[in-house]
Amino acid sequence: MPQDVRFELPFRTPVSEHLGYARERHLRWVWDMGLVRSKAGFEEYQSWDLPQAAARTYPYASADDMVVLMNWFSLAFLFDDQFDAGRPDRADRIAEVARELIVTPLRPAGTTPRVVCPITVAWTEVWSTLSDGMSLTWRTRFAASWGRFLAAHTEEVDLAAHGLAGTLSLEEYAEFRRRTVGIHHSIDAGERSRGFEVPPQVQAHPLMVRMRDLAADTIGFMNDIHSFEREKRRGDGHNLIAVLHRERGCSWEEAAAEAYRMTTECLKEYLELEARVPHMCDELGLTATQRLHVQMGVEAIQHWINGNYEWALVSGRYNAAKEGPAVTAELAGKGSVDDLLTV
Amino acid sequence: MPQDVRFELPFRTPVSEHLGYARERHLRWVWDMGLVRSKAGFEEYQSWDLPQAAARTYPYASADDMVVLMNWFSLAFLFDDQFDAGRPDRADRIAEVARELIVTPLRPAGTTPRVVCPITVAWTEVWSTLSDGMSLTWRTRFAASWGRFLAAHTEEVDLAAHGLAGTLSLEEYAEFRRRTVGIHHSIDAGERSRGFEVPPQVQAHPLMVRMRDLAADTIGFMNDIHSFEREKRRGDGHNLIAVLHRERGCSWEEAAAEAYRMTTECLKEYLELEARVPHMCDELGLTATQRLHVQMGVEAIQHWINGNYEWALVSGRYNAAKEGPAVTAELAGKGSVDDLLTV
Repeated sequence: MPQDVRFELPFRTPVSEHLGYARERHLRWVWDMGLVRSKAGFEEYQSWDLPQAAARTYPYASADDMVVLMNWFSLAFLFDDQFDAGRPDRADRIAEVARELIVTPLRPAGTTPRVVCPITVAWTEVWSTLSDGMSLTWRTRFAASWGRFLAAHTEEVDLAAHGLAGTLSLEEYAEFRRRTVGIHHSIDAGERSRGFEVPPQVQAHPLMVRMRDLAADTIGFMNDIHSFEREKRRGDGHNLIAVLHRERGCSWEEAAAEAYRMTTECLKEYLELEARVPHMCDELGLTATQRLHVQMGVEAIQHWINGNYEWALVSGRYNAAKEGPAVTAELAGKGSVDDLLTV
Repeated sequence: MPQDVRFELPFRTPVSEHLGYARERHLRWVWDMGLVRSKAGFEEYQSWDLPQAAARTYPYASADDMVVLMNWFSLAFLFDDQFDAGRPDRADRIAEVARELIVTPLRPAGTTPRVVCPITVAWTEVWSTLSDGMSLTWRTRFAASWGRFLAAHTEEVDLAAHGLAGTLSLEEYAEFRRRTVGIHHSIDAGERSRGFEVPPQVQAHPLMVRMRDLAADTIGFMNDIHSFEREKRRGDGHNLIAVLHRERGCSWEEAAAEAYRMTTECLKEYLELEARVPHMCDELGLTATQRLHVQMGVEAIQHWINGNYEWALVSGRYNAAKEGPAVTAELAGKGSVDDLLTV
């Protein structure tokens, strides 16, 4: 199944002009912070081209902020891969590190982590910049979005450690996927990247709550389609195509076609709700400035849907026909080349 | 120094009519859940009269909800006492349990805890009811308030475990106390207890943010005054009077007088801001229903300031002249009679 499955997206989004500058500084930081620890790990990491993902999803960030956003992506993606199927006891260490990551935004920014490893030290530094200048309300929302994602990540690892990854029903999987995809906090960060905040009564409105959920569903399902070969190679059953194949007893091709259909359904519903945003602004009696911030909030969602899509088509992370140390590690059940959960 | 230091509060607040009914069911629950494990522990717990605290701080809760609020108080207060000065390694277990408590509201309600002990099992059950019917926005706010409190609690225990409890400056202590007192989530729960929500744009308004902080300062400092003898007996330096005594090199009486003055200053500023609430409602263009919910939100703060005050004057928890197993345990450096962090 090829990686470059195409979708019809009705919006184009820009790419940051700081991509080249920020990538260079970011790659040095990743190495200096110990987020890659071997030549093979560094090569694998570079092949993912996360800087492109950050430059597409946060196109209006300043040059300095762009570096920090790339740094954030690196620790989140690298942490995501730390489970080792051959060592199920590692689930406890992953949970411990995840909880440290959850607590960081709940303490004064800059506080020394209580659980020390490259991932937690990196996050402490990133959070100091990511939270800078944002209101208590935004920090509260981000902390909860981020915490829900990391709690779900631990649940995902626990299922894998107990050999239960492939036991969820389609309904359970869809609910779970919305939490493991990590889109809510990613959209929240869009406000920081552009120096604005969506008014709190808008974030609380059922229309916006549903739009955020549908964006998460759309991106999560798209990701399942684009990363299918990688996850199959890794024996990772947390994938919509795998769930459909098992639950419906259909072929892989039929499962992939159904996953595609479900993804476009989510996108369609998202777009229908997006069209109702001006009406919501009227209903809430927003000022012109508030309306502008709502518009920028919607754009932050679009940047994520389209930016992530464009990146996933070409990223080496999801390459189906791949060789080298990363693939060898994956085929052996290891999540990654380098261990980042020890000092 | 006597426990019953009086303050002039400009508002009276009601007491729940369900106190007697709920206390009886609550005490049975505490025993059944293993939150007290010995006769001495149960007697000490009963002497605190937490049911009265809940009945004063959430006077409008239904009979069933009142039981759950009392249950919640029990696990929070009992967890607060689990540090044992003679076993500094216990700080790690406290941090582990605190993080489980933080994660609970970030998972679907009712999820089995990952770290199992009487405190975490009790919280999972309480959270299912406490979150019931509340919006995502409220659950987000509660989860962050609760998480910040528990993260600060771990910091407090870590300081004690490293023998650094008595090293904070007055300024550092005041900032820290605002986080360890746990008032933000307590006020949040007031909305659940009465079935309403303060509009999100009001919660985000600088006036309300500051009022919540000042309520926390007022209650934290009052608590330091009322609990002074208990904390002195326990060798707990996390107390405003102790900080003033050390930093200013003054007598205990002078330190207590200054703590009293600081408390009334916080209360005075809180009341000045409270008077500006109608103006804030005009500025935000709130509807009549929204204004009512703001008024109820302010009452939730008043219930906490006055209700906690009235309870603290008479609770056996802060009794200065006290004897028995709890005092023996405290004098030996143990935080509590019963260990609640093991299965």
